[in-house]
Amino acid sequence: MRSSNDRLDQIFSALANSTRRAILARLAEGEATVTELAEPFDLSLPAISKHIRILERVGLITQGRNAQYRPCSLDIAPLEEVTKWTERYRHVWESRFERMDEYINQISNKEKNND
Amino acid sequence: MRSSNDRLDQIFSALANSTRRAILARLAEGEATVTELAEPFDLSLPAISKHIRILERVGLITQGRNAQYRPCSLDIAPLEEVTKWTERYRHVWESRFERMDEYINQISNKEKNND
Repeated sequence: MRSSNDRLDQIFSALANSTRRAILARLAEGEATVTELAEPFDLSLPAISKHIRILERVGLITQGRNAQYRPCSLDIAPLEEVTKWTERYRHVWESRFERMDEYINQISNKEKNND
Repeated sequence: MRSSNDRLDQIFSALANSTRRAILARLAEGEATVTELAEPFDLSLPAISKHIRILERVGLITQGRNAQYRPCSLDIAPLEEVTKWTERYRHVWESRFERMDEYINQISNKEKNND
């Protein structure tokens, strides 16, 4: 449990940065080199590399081994872990809607009885 | 766009802490006071209050106004924002599966032709 908690801490923390989310959005269109990823941002290559390392550490980015040309690609498996976690709260929504339904039924029954 | 980015930064950052996620899990079962929320954790009341304030700031917790008894309750609307964001990456999964399907079809067609 502890380790799955640490893992979610790291994934959420990696996602809590708009530059890193923009890098993921770019990679969703296809693989790119670090230089290509840096282009749209007003950031130095070392700064972009740091963001990439953070995304790589949680498994959101994989980098090719070829030293000359190491394109980054997106691996969305960690996003599935996020979805799994948020899914646990779906029942809160659903029970809230059920209670609302019940309430509406009660009101409409009362109105019928008053007719 | 900027403000929606800041907002996601804050939500992801609020979720990047296992104590705060445990507080949300507790509140999914029903409202609770700060003292009740502090019980299962080896943390001081001020430390728990700080976590609650962070969750409150992003709208994941709402607190009652009554000064004597201010129960906290869960509001999962910010989690819907997270889901909306992760949903954007669903097509990456889907296109990956489609490519895999195509590949499997190609292989099985080749095998048929070789028979």
